[in-house]
Amino acid sequence: MFPKPTLIINKSKVEDNLARMHQKAVQNSVGIRPHFKTHQSAEIGELFREKGVDKITVSSVSMAEYFANHGWKDITIAFPVNLREVTKIDNLAGNISLNLLVDSSYSTEQLAGSLTNQVGLFVEIDNGYHRSGLLPEQIMEIEKIVQITEQSDQLLFKGFLTHAGNTYNAKSKAEILSIMADAAEKLNDLKAKFIDRFPNIITSYGDTPSCSMAEDLSLFNEIRPGNFVYYDVMQYHIGSCTLDDIAVAVACPIVSVYPDRSEMVIYGGAVHFSKEFIAADNNFQLFGYVVELKDTGWSEPIPGAYVSSISQEHGVVKMPKDIKKNYKPGDVLGVLPVHSCLTADLLRETQIIFD
Amino acid sequence: MFPKPTLIINKSKVEDNLARMHQKAVQNSVGIRPHFKTHQSAEIGELFREKGVDKITVSSVSMAEYFANHGWKDITIAFPVNLREVTKIDNLAGNISLNLLVDSSYSTEQLAGSLTNQVGLFVEIDNGYHRSGLLPEQIMEIEKIVQITEQSDQLLFKGFLTHAGNTYNAKSKAEILSIMADAAEKLNDLKAKFIDRFPNIITSYGDTPSCSMAEDLSLFNEIRPGNFVYYDVMQYHIGSCTLDDIAVAVACPIVSVYPDRSEMVIYGGAVHFSKEFIAADNNFQLFGYVVELKDTGWSEPIPGAYVSSISQEHGVVKMPKDIKKNYKPGDVLGVLPVHSCLTADLLRETQIIFD
Repeated sequence: MFPKPTLIINKSKVEDNLARMHQKAVQNSVGIRPHFKTHQSAEIGELFREKGVDKITVSSVSMAEYFANHGWKDITIAFPVNLREVTKIDNLAGNISLNLLVDSSYSTEQLAGSLTNQVGLFVEIDNGYHRSGLLPEQIMEIEKIVQITEQSDQLLFKGFLTHAGNTYNAKSKAEILSIMADAAEKLNDLKAKFIDRFPNIITSYGDTPSCSMAEDLSLFNEIRPGNFVYYDVMQYHIGSCTLDDIAVAVACPIVSVYPDRSEMVIYGGAVHFSKEFIAADNNFQLFGYVVELKDTGWSEPIPGAYVSSISQEHGVVKMPKDIKKNYKPGDVLGVLPVHSCLTADLLRETQIIFD
Repeated sequence: MFPKPTLIINKSKVEDNLARMHQKAVQNSVGIRPHFKTHQSAEIGELFREKGVDKITVSSVSMAEYFANHGWKDITIAFPVNLREVTKIDNLAGNISLNLLVDSSYSTEQLAGSLTNQVGLFVEIDNGYHRSGLLPEQIMEIEKIVQITEQSDQLLFKGFLTHAGNTYNAKSKAEILSIMADAAEKLNDLKAKFIDRFPNIITSYGDTPSCSMAEDLSLFNEIRPGNFVYYDVMQYHIGSCTLDDIAVAVACPIVSVYPDRSEMVIYGGAVHFSKEFIAADNNFQLFGYVVELKDTGWSEPIPGAYVSSISQEHGVVKMPKDIKKNYKPGDVLGVLPVHSCLTADLLRETQIIFD
């Protein structure tokens, strides 16, 4: 078992994470359209379906095709529409209910001129994260987009959507809740401006930190968290989850042990984890916590143990000096990843789901 | 063309990079066993074969199997032997000439007890990089390893090998050459200690920065550079290559344009580039240079333009304020990657070789 780096998915933790978020959505009467970019797995998708989830979010046309092929019929591609894939988009829209994001009248015009099937269209709003989206005050451009949809049989205006990625840099729960409240105000102000002309438009809000920490999600019509299905060390540091909520670990063979350095080298590097890390002062970098694998699941992180650097295939693990266990090459360690989305993407071909 | 992020490989630049390194090896009478972890491509491998290269380096058993299946008969897996893949290793050793790395008597004993076919064995030496390998002064452990090979029909002692990964953090050419000279002294001292008992042992040395910058490589019997086939922005910053030597660019569709911010968003993120970056003061992070794609190849980097952040699928491109060209969603930009090995690994399924 575990001849090479393998993503171990703890099914009961996934189900717990999913049940908690689903229940919160139900209690708040807010729709849930989970982001499947984290797991990218038809098998994990089935656990959502069992909960009654029938609307999903993805971040690329390829991912939309994959999940459409696995029976998902209502998909939002939460990424500024890629005009170079308009033919694939049009084909997909002929088979499922597909929503796209735009943040320019130019892209909207191009879509109107090239689609033959109908798609839903969200205007992406920049809540202050400044990655993609229009600022709420760019109301002339928003109006222009909306007017193009009014004149097009192919474009159905669905509402306003934002991803509050700036919560990842927030320093406290209070700051995260404040970012969320601000985004809610922006989206709801815009909705209020257009609701008379478009009675069915909604507000859609993303990001795992705020959806995990907020009790009140009722200010939105729909939430799109993704990472919460697995969580990871980054989310633990932000405060979105406990260590025990983290539902994935990577099994990594130990290939070398250096007692004098209190270090080991594992088979597990950038091509398995990506290179996301948590930085602190004095050049400290953390690429993952270290756990002991058990017959079912894994232990708490070993205190003082962590992945301190990674290159293409190597991971260097720092161990506490007083560790008693006599690790040998050929043993296997577990690593809780810093960013589960990127790790799961890289290990799609070597994943195991444990009950 | 280029519906999604695509690795464009400029064949003539690859051939130039390869010819230069090959010629240097010939002039120095040093063997060349290029590291194929950078390109991981049978097609690019053929360009090496045309130059007369018949020995290669890889960093995993899986990669060794891939290239063995493409006709490569002499392969060194430059990674501490993974005992959990010993059956695959043994099968491979039945078909090709296979070399492994060890840095403990424990792993060597395990190999001796489980292999049925013969493998070559290098003792990996830690030159001061402190990732994997034994320190030269751990001579008792080295002697123990060598004695195990003497008593085993399956283990043939091949010599001493090091990867000088610390050249990547060096601040000048002088420092890189000094790291190389020091590694040569360490490897040659060890070789001298064992040459009487093992007349055929060699010294093997890796890393692109020193093999690119040094004129004199004659202190080693074999070099194993890998990244030089493509180079990248990191190697340019280290001083290993010119910008013009970089042989790969990633074609990325533009999905959004923000004139007020002098920024654009491209389809091209961490799942295409990994998250390696070059950092400078004031939180400046560089994830790639931006070029214009041409019918053959690409332009010099656009002055002042760079990829300033990436998330899973998004890349944010900062453009100079005075840019004249009117970019639109649906256009395509080229990005010179910071780390070509990780980028090529992620884009193996979407690569194009241009003459």
